[in-house]
Amino acid sequence: MNLVLFTPEETRQPLPLTDPRARHVRDVLRRGVGDTFDAGLVDGPRGTATLAALADDALVLTFAWGPPPPPPDPLTLLLGLPRPQTARDILRDATTLGVAALHFAATEKSEPSYAQSTLWRDGEWRRHLLAGAAQAFATQLPAVTAGETLATALAALPAGATRLALDNYEATAALRDALPSGAAAPLVLALGPERGWGARDRAALRAAGFTLVHLGPRVLRLETAVIAALTLAKSARGTL
Amino acid sequence: MNLVLFTPEETRQPLPLTDPRARHVRDVLRRGVGDTFDAGLVDGPRGTATLAALADDALVLTFAWGPPPPPPDPLTLLLGLPRPQTARDILRDATTLGVAALHFAATEKSEPSYAQSTLWRDGEWRRHLLAGAAQAFATQLPAVTAGETLATALAALPAGATRLALDNYEATAALRDALPSGAAAPLVLALGPERGWGARDRAALRAAGFTLVHLGPRVLRLETAVIAALTLAKSARGTL
Repeated sequence: MNLVLFTPEETRQPLPLTDPRARHVRDVLRRGVGDTFDAGLVDGPRGTATLAALADDALVLTFAWGPPPPPPDPLTLLLGLPRPQTARDILRDATTLGVAALHFAATEKSEPSYAQSTLWRDGEWRRHLLAGAAQAFATQLPAVTAGETLATALAALPAGATRLALDNYEATAALRDALPSGAAAPLVLALGPERGWGARDRAALRAAGFTLVHLGPRVLRLETAVIAALTLAKSARGTL
Repeated sequence: MNLVLFTPEETRQPLPLTDPRARHVRDVLRRGVGDTFDAGLVDGPRGTATLAALADDALVLTFAWGPPPPPPDPLTLLLGLPRPQTARDILRDATTLGVAALHFAATEKSEPSYAQSTLWRDGEWRRHLLAGAAQAFATQLPAVTAGETLATALAALPAGATRLALDNYEATAALRDALPSGAAAPLVLALGPERGWGARDRAALRAAGFTLVHLGPRVLRLETAVIAALTLAKSARGTL
């Protein structure tokens, strides 16, 4: 937790000692009354928190915020709905690397039951975004959808973006050669679930303007491919 | 397990049904007598295995091997000894991406007890290399050392390689601008443990010819930074 993140409501009341952030401030950062630490407002500015007082069961904090954050990188990830444990890693790591939106869509080779996971049902997914942003020293969380059909997710993608889909079987160009440069160019990267795209998925992607690209001859785990693809995209934009 | 890997000795005897590879061939790949699957010899060729017969407690396999693999990419990773769970991920993912050597050295902010983990004591580390290679459809395992001092590890690095160390605090150039291009250029990438390099580590790295470079303003988990750094290095070489 490089940055301790709060919602606006949470900054207006003492932080209960049972909250993991309170334990982090006391036990890991070892802050006492009068000490400060790096804090952030979710989707807002970063700043400095001061531990003003210790109540019986809560920390009393005051905040001084900096300027608002820049708009997020116009990067959208479209993923075939993967196993929940894979999705947890992607939610965290894609947020750390910085994306504007993450869409987990049901594809031909997605397991439909994955959409019923507690990850998606109980709002657990947001916890992984917060962890990823705190790691990056960032405040912004991507927009997230999960469980829509691929057709619905494709129809809702931003217009005017370069559209590239990773594929181990039918790609003819390397991702690195297909990426737009310049930090402002909107980009959608699509990656299939663990078992890859099906024939109907590929047809739908091509019809929606996607080019199939690859990450070289070695077959990567989905979680690794997400990090590698975002790294190349960010590097081409000059932001990593 | 995209490729089922065997040592030369293992190909000369039936594969016990209790072996995870036998369960994979039967239960995941659903192969019967006469069927084939993709196999590899560790540090040797890839090829095709045939399930020749089912014994009571073992699979009888025959093999047809292809040409020997090309030499590994001359990429060396030098890491500050991290938590065992972090090291497991790095062992697997760096092998999937393809490196010639992985050195986990004790640095100022490494926890000495990490070197006593069962990961390193009981040979468990090799299992993660095998998983990473099988994922990549590759046979080659990196050379691995763990627990040496940083000074010893630095002294043993290959001569003539570009030497770049990731650093969140004192780097002045981006990794992407410091990478050599061309697949043959030897390269050493160094990353500190989770808590980063200490002042003496940085002095030792600089004295050994390392340039400190960064991966942008967002602070990545060590596991993520390893994948990102290897991705950029491989991409500059044209091999990803």
